[in-house]
Amino acid sequence: MKIAIINGPNLNLLGQRENSIYGNRSFDDFFINLKLEYSDIEFIYFQSNVEGELINFLQIVSTEVDGIIINPGGYTHTSVAIGDCIAALKLPVLEVHISNIFAREDFRKVSHVSAKCRGTISGLGLEGYCLAVSWIKKQDFNK
Amino acid sequence: MKIAIINGPNLNLLGQRENSIYGNRSFDDFFINLKLEYSDIEFIYFQSNVEGELINFLQIVSTEVDGIIINPGGYTHTSVAIGDCIAALKLPVLEVHISNIFAREDFRKVSHVSAKCRGTISGLGLEGYCLAVSWIKKQDFNK
Amino acid sequence: MKIAIINGPNLNLLGQRENSIYGNRSFDDFFINLKLEYSDIEFIYFQSNVEGELINFLQIVSTEVDGIIINPGGYTHTSVAIGDCIAALKLPVLEVHISNIFAREDFRKVSHVSAKCRGTISGLGLEGYCLAVSWIKKQDFNK
Amino acid sequence: MKIAIINGPNLNLLGQRENSIYGNRSFDDFFINLKLEYSDIEFIYFQSNVEGELINFLQIVSTEVDGIIINPGGYTHTSVAIGDCIAALKLPVLEVHISNIFAREDFRKVSHVSAKCRGTISGLGLEGYCLAVSWIKKQDFNK
Amino acid sequence: MKIAIINGPNLNLLGQRENSIYGNRSFDDFFINLKLEYSDIEFIYFQSNVEGELINFLQIVSTEVDGIIINPGGYTHTSVAIGDCIAALKLPVLEVHISNIFAREDFRKVSHVSAKCRGTISGLGLEGYCLAVSWIKKQDFNK
Amino acid sequence: MKIAIINGPNLNLLGQRENSIYGNRSFDDFFINLKLEYSDIEFIYFQSNVEGELINFLQIVSTEVDGIIINPGGYTHTSVAIGDCIAALKLPVLEVHISNIFAREDFRKVSHVSAKCRGTISGLGLEGYCLAVSWIKKQDFNK
Amino acid sequence: MKIAIINGPNLNLLGQRENSIYGNRSFDDFFINLKLEYSDIEFIYFQSNVEGELINFLQIVSTEVDGIIINPGGYTHTSVAIGDCIAALKLPVLEVHISNIFAREDFRKVSHVSAKCRGTISGLGLEGYCLAVSWIKKQDFNK
Amino acid sequence: MKIAIINGPNLNLLGQRENSIYGNRSFDDFFINLKLEYSDIEFIYFQSNVEGELINFLQIVSTEVDGIIINPGGYTHTSVAIGDCIAALKLPVLEVHISNIFAREDFRKVSHVSAKCRGTISGLGLEGYCLAVSWIKKQDFNK
Amino acid sequence: MKIAIINGPNLNLLGQRENSIYGNRSFDDFFINLKLEYSDIEFIYFQSNVEGELINFLQIVSTEVDGIIINPGGYTHTSVAIGDCIAALKLPVLEVHISNIFAREDFRKVSHVSAKCRGTISGLGLEGYCLAVSWIKKQDFNK
Amino acid sequence: MKIAIINGPNLNLLGQRENSIYGNRSFDDFFINLKLEYSDIEFIYFQSNVEGELINFLQIVSTEVDGIIINPGGYTHTSVAIGDCIAALKLPVLEVHISNIFAREDFRKVSHVSAKCRGTISGLGLEGYCLAVSWIKKQDFNK
Amino acid sequence: MKIAIINGPNLNLLGQRENSIYGNRSFDDFFINLKLEYSDIEFIYFQSNVEGELINFLQIVSTEVDGIIINPGGYTHTSVAIGDCIAALKLPVLEVHISNIFAREDFRKVSHVSAKCRGTISGLGLEGYCLAVSWIKKQDFNK
Amino acid sequence: MKIAIINGPNLNLLGQRENSIYGNRSFDDFFINLKLEYSDIEFIYFQSNVEGELINFLQIVSTEVDGIIINPGGYTHTSVAIGDCIAALKLPVLEVHISNIFAREDFRKVSHVSAKCRGTISGLGLEGYCLAVSWIKKQDFNK
Repeated sequence: MKIAIINGPNLNLLGQRENSIYGNRSFDDFFINLKLEYSDIEFIYFQSNVEGELINFLQIVSTEVDGIIINPGGYTHTSVAIGDCIAALKLPVLEVHISNIFAREDFRKVSHVSAKCRGTISGLGLEGYCLAVSWIKKQDFNK
Repeated sequence: MKIAIINGPNLNLLGQRENSIYGNRSFDDFFINLKLEYSDIEFIYFQSNVEGELINFLQIVSTEVDGIIINPGGYTHTSVAIGDCIAALKLPVLEVHISNIFAREDFRKVSHVSAKCRGTISGLGLEGYCLAVSWIKKQDFNK
Repeated sequence: MKIAIINGPNLNLLGQRENSIYGNRSFDDFFINLKLEYSDIEFIYFQSNVEGELINFLQIVSTEVDGIIINPGGYTHTSVAIGDCIAALKLPVLEVHISNIFAREDFRKVSHVSAKCRGTISGLGLEGYCLAVSWIKKQDFNK
Repeated sequence: MKIAIINGPNLNLLGQRENSIYGNRSFDDFFINLKLEYSDIEFIYFQSNVEGELINFLQIVSTEVDGIIINPGGYTHTSVAIGDCIAALKLPVLEVHISNIFAREDFRKVSHVSAKCRGTISGLGLEGYCLAVSWIKKQDFNK
Repeated sequence: MKIAIINGPNLNLLGQRENSIYGNRSFDDFFINLKLEYSDIEFIYFQSNVEGELINFLQIVSTEVDGIIINPGGYTHTSVAIGDCIAALKLPVLEVHISNIFAREDFRKVSHVSAKCRGTISGLGLEGYCLAVSWIKKQDFNK
Repeated sequence: MKIAIINGPNLNLLGQRENSIYGNRSFDDFFINLKLEYSDIEFIYFQSNVEGELINFLQIVSTEVDGIIINPGGYTHTSVAIGDCIAALKLPVLEVHISNIFAREDFRKVSHVSAKCRGTISGLGLEGYCLAVSWIKKQDFNK
Repeated sequence: MKIAIINGPNLNLLGQRENSIYGNRSFDDFFINLKLEYSDIEFIYFQSNVEGELINFLQIVSTEVDGIIINPGGYTHTSVAIGDCIAALKLPVLEVHISNIFAREDFRKVSHVSAKCRGTISGLGLEGYCLAVSWIKKQDFNK
Repeated sequence: MKIAIINGPNLNLLGQRENSIYGNRSFDDFFINLKLEYSDIEFIYFQSNVEGELINFLQIVSTEVDGIIINPGGYTHTSVAIGDCIAALKLPVLEVHISNIFAREDFRKVSHVSAKCRGTISGLGLEGYCLAVSWIKKQDFNK
Repeated sequence: MKIAIINGPNLNLLGQRENSIYGNRSFDDFFINLKLEYSDIEFIYFQSNVEGELINFLQIVSTEVDGIIINPGGYTHTSVAIGDCIAALKLPVLEVHISNIFAREDFRKVSHVSAKCRGTISGLGLEGYCLAVSWIKKQDFNK
Repeated sequence: MKIAIINGPNLNLLGQRENSIYGNRSFDDFFINLKLEYSDIEFIYFQSNVEGELINFLQIVSTEVDGIIINPGGYTHTSVAIGDCIAALKLPVLEVHISNIFAREDFRKVSHVSAKCRGTISGLGLEGYCLAVSWIKKQDFNK
Repeated sequence: MKIAIINGPNLNLLGQRENSIYGNRSFDDFFINLKLEYSDIEFIYFQSNVEGELINFLQIVSTEVDGIIINPGGYTHTSVAIGDCIAALKLPVLEVHISNIFAREDFRKVSHVSAKCRGTISGLGLEGYCLAVSWIKKQDFNK
Repeated sequence: MKIAIINGPNLNLLGQRENSIYGNRSFDDFFINLKLEYSDIEFIYFQSNVEGELINFLQIVSTEVDGIIINPGGYTHTSVAIGDCIAALKLPVLEVHISNIFAREDFRKVSHVSAKCRGTISGLGLEGYCLAVSWIKKQDFNK
């Protein structure tokens, strides 16, 4: 089984950035553990600050994997184009947010992406990615 | 370890109600499996159609359990009082929605509850409750 | 034939309350006449000020009757949960308002219930309930 | 007793137009039955696609009849002028909509007419006109 | 002289809940002092987390007392039904809020209750209840 | 000198309609006096309840007169087309409202016509037409 | 092949009206050329300033032609009734605007007609009508 | 007969300020002519840039004159206090605007003053003051 | 103990102005009684119709008194500057409104002042000032 | 003559993506036909999912071609930067949308690009590109 | 060269007021340094809490100086009249805010003044005034 | 001392683009002078039309310089991601706009970037960059 994890803008700064909101663990560090925990799954990881590169990657990787986990970062609230791309894909796409976006600024309550994903996990920290992985795994198992 | 699961209005109809949105499995049926899957956890289950009874139960159960999973149903979008109650509690409260509330009517995009919870899982079906349980369990384990 | 009539909050005060808006006849008094007028129909009547009890009753009574007439009172404008409940029912549900809600405060122009009912009769006084009864009766007759 | 029935724009297409919303019965066909059902009432019928002609007719007919039943069609949501006209009349004016306007597009939730009518019946099909007739008849009887 | 004091949802948690906003004194503790201070007044106290029970109590108690002091808690911002109930009562009803609702979240600036009360006291802590009592007492005295 | 006076929907009812708002004098009665007062001016008068007929008349009469006084009635608030027509004319067009439209319903605060006219006189009763006439006359005199 | 071209309010003024926006060519002049350019197509032309007459013509002509090109002028932004009429028709209806409505006043960004047409051409001058004709012709050819 | 004319902020700059909007005639110059034209009327003139001084003057002068003409300038759109003051006066107060406020920025469409005046004259230049004077004079005459 | 009472625009008209809303007692008359009732407190009274003079006085008096009671009148709804001033003060500032501002026009529901005060008393008539005085007195006593 | 055609995000998926909305023909396939149909025109084609690359290309290509046809896809509704770029260009830029954007989600009704283009063609399928080409060609011919 | 610096309401409290937002340096203290730094420039300084006095001063000083620097304080967000005044002046007017108004309450994002100034400097502390001075100086130098 | 200057989309067109708004000087030309004027400062310059590349550069350069000056161009109004990035940086970031964004289209009044910067300079032309440089320099000097 193969899962793509896609992180949007500024998520490469995780662990160095606004720690009170995002925690102080880097994604790389977390990712090592994730791979250990789900050693039966092959992961493809991609991070970009460029909206269109996220779309490029979504389009390409969608033909190779069983599910996609995306944290679109700041593009969540402004990108119709990423939403359109996800709507065009046929495999399950899950949205993850590290912080609770409902407990922050008002503009973070608008999303052009969430409606096009299968579901959303928000506010549960990096652990949210694990939950998303375990959900995709279980879906596959139930087929 | 002890976890309370609280379901709001109309969730007692699960499996009989708008199947294309909510699926055709009853909560009872799902709950049996949940308990099997997490046999090491003691569950307390409560469902009510009455907003204030959900508040009553939240207040009382919060002193007995390690975490709460709540699906406030239709009250998600209208209840300041449930949000206030959760804000007053000290244990982790997770919000679960079976359907993807972002992909439905506009009024379902307003939430008075989400900002007061630790996090939200939406659109992942009944499986969302499992993810919530596993998250609370892991938190506890990490203490 | 069996019809349930459900009245929401403050409708138990009818006849004593803001007479210029709601008239000075009590519901009980009106109900006696209704039953006389439609002696071939069995009526079940329920009034509650509690949103969730209205949902409880809607769920239960829906399996026993041929149609439901509901006046959700103040919950019309705030209850997503009652709207959700009605959407889950399969029999015809008609909404009745004694006063013309369009001619009153702006917040009474918002409804979370009307869209989920088969139709709405508003502004025609207690007579609105009669019209609703006669509509359900005719539907039944046409089957 | 004399009642005017006034239909607004596109209602002359009834039975040919968007049948899933409006049904497949023409108004003429329905009107024959209505007249049979209420043979003691004299009906005046008028349909126009022109907003101002509806106003002209409302002004003129209002001096000759005991009540008016109007379905302003698409003008419901845009016509201040029809609303102003109805506000100027002294006899009871009832608004009827065949479909449930609350269950359709958002712009159909705005009405400049409803607040000026005695009451509104919506979503109950052509039968809504019958209910309106029976209400006016009863009012008259009670004088 | 007899005054009813009615507290809405979560006010039973006073003293344990978000102390920086609501202070650390329980209502019971405060109530003892209130009764001492106004020993010539008979108080009836009621707290409920259920919107409809607040309405039930308002309806019933209104026939027995000279004035009502209500803190509708979170229902202040969402309950048309409580507002409707107060509008139907003839005795003076005063609204009290412990915290300054204008200095908090935006959704607390909407009120369906305030317009129907005689007046509002907000932000003056538990002392607000005393002020309300002294106002009702004085009114009575001036008759 | 020649001036056209154009009245929109329901202004033919003046004197019979909502007297507390519009007064109890008919336009005909007023018009006789106006012609006496300004006997040196030739008036062309037109009233219609049909939006498009008002446009037709505006287009035609604009080539024959020195100024136009229009009271668009209810179309003031909804007619982009009348506004477009006035914008296309080269002579001065003045808007008159008998009642103070700012002191009435909110929807009367929107105007698609006012911005396209030279100016607006509102709330000064039928006398507003006189003021408009005297303004056009003076303009002409100043040429 | 037969195509109807329908122009709404004030389009009869083309060439005389706000030339910087609409150009200085009359529609008649343009229409002669259009007929020459598409001599194999029979055109029916209709212009009215009356909303309801546009609806009347749409209803009637729709049974005789292969496609309709409509420029609803100012009614674009206010007419639910024209939109409703087009929704009821089965042949392709194209909307044309001479000026770029997006580059003008805000109220011209609202349209009740566009969503009900097959498509819209705006801002390309009178040439927009030609493009619409060529599109309908090609559709027909592809059958 | 005595009339007060009150000008708000920046109207002392008339003739020097944004001439394309306000013209190039000073108020003083105009005022000389006004007094000549209405030599039978005693005028009291006041201009201030201070909102509260306008209120002071309104309060004081209202006991001495037969009518007030006010151009509140920029305070038109922001001053609840001037509106409140006018609502408290018993004599007729007319609002005049030199430019057509409907044809300018959006924020000039909001008025807290207009609803409290008897009527408004806008867009007719300094001549608007003359019209207002003649209206008050006529009212007086009709007593 | 020393308390400043500050009244904003038009409150000098109390007793003469819109009696159905504000009552018919002048502030001076009330103030005599207030001083009698609280003879142990030294009062400083200030009224101005000028927004900036209210700010001037707030700044100066704040160093001399133990508490401030302000009724900002119409400036409540428009003055960021008074709100800013109060936010800069360290002593308790209470806002009083004679009428129930929630039961009046919509624009009175916006306040730039309330959030910056300790609390608000509204709708309780002139008696509201007494309550405010007694609150400040008690606070002082509790120190 | 030289024309650039620029396609925004996800348009490379045409024919594979949401066929009920966008049809099942790929752009490449269509483009071959377009080039055949307009063999006298040289086309430059560019597609990118990256907003800024669309801007880069617009800036560069604008010096080489006679006209630009752009379908900004999802960036239509969110990109001020593309709109700014087009505003800076001197040649004609036409916007094309394959689907009728007015008949889809509300957020597709906002456009930051349309106002800056010469015109827009929407809802006419891939054929819209042909119409745009023929318009530019004709413009050139008329020079 | 001569520059006027105008400070609006509450800026006389600088250094004593909300130090975390505005810093703890008084304006007088800063002003001494400013004059030292720009000893070749003559400064006129004015502070008032009264909106209209700011307008008075702007009008008068504008004829004597080469540029104006204004910090309208709380009036920034509410004063159309100050904006109107600045629009009427011909010399460069710069707006300075000590704090970053975009990072504060929502109501501080509305400005009636900024659009009428040449430019705005905000969030750079008292240093913002220096930058404004240096800009005006440079402009003058470039003449 | 080292300062990065970052220009967003379309700023590479400066001097060629909409000269009435942006002036006719190219950034390169200006930059030569800036470097001469501040010869003691090392500048790093970057321009991109790609939102994500601006984020990439912001992240990287932030570790090498003492301050950043950014003109996000059209992304100012739409980019949450750039705002998020700036919030994550620890050095001072200043926002510069050449034109007065408050005096332009409404959508330019929304900013997702300004609140996250230390301050904003807008409307002062290319000179705004100089002011920003001098501010950063002074800050550094004061350390």
